[in-house]
Amino acid sequence: MSNAIFFHAGCPVCVAVEQQFAQALDPARYQVEVVHLGQDSSRIAEAENLGVQSVPALVIDGHPFHINFGAPLSALK
Amino acid sequence: MSNAIFFHAGCPVCVAVEQQFAQALDPARYQVEVVHLGQDSSRIAEAENLGVQSVPALVIDGHPFHINFGAPLSALK
Repeated sequence: MSNAIFFHAGCPVCVAVEQQFAQALDPARYQVEVVHLGQDSSRIAEAENLGVQSVPALVIDGHPFHINFGAPLSALK
Repeated sequence: MSNAIFFHAGCPVCVAVEQQFAQALDPARYQVEVVHLGQDSSRIAEAENLGVQSVPALVIDGHPFHINFGAPLSALK
């Protein structure tokens, strides 16, 4: 089982990506954790260290994937 | 079974996204078609009509998701 972390900020772009994309991952292989950086700003540094530059983003096995564009991380600090 | 189309152009960003991301979709729910727009430019119009602006992009149930950034569609024409 691999870990995937979906970082978002509650924006409309983020919500659409979460509902239509993050849920599409294979549940037999990926355990998806959803992190709302707007509500949990203590994890912004973790996202940055993983290479996340904007939300929404999905980190799979440590690799960041930026999906569409909602907001830059800097807007959440 | 839903259809998902992964549009790419063979660029390094595209290949990484295909290997680490498109393959992560749930095979029980999504049939993923991979389209190389650099080799099959006849499908660029189809991608544009689906809202794709750059590659790599994944279209799930008609919704385009741009994942990272490899090249704009205009560079493939």
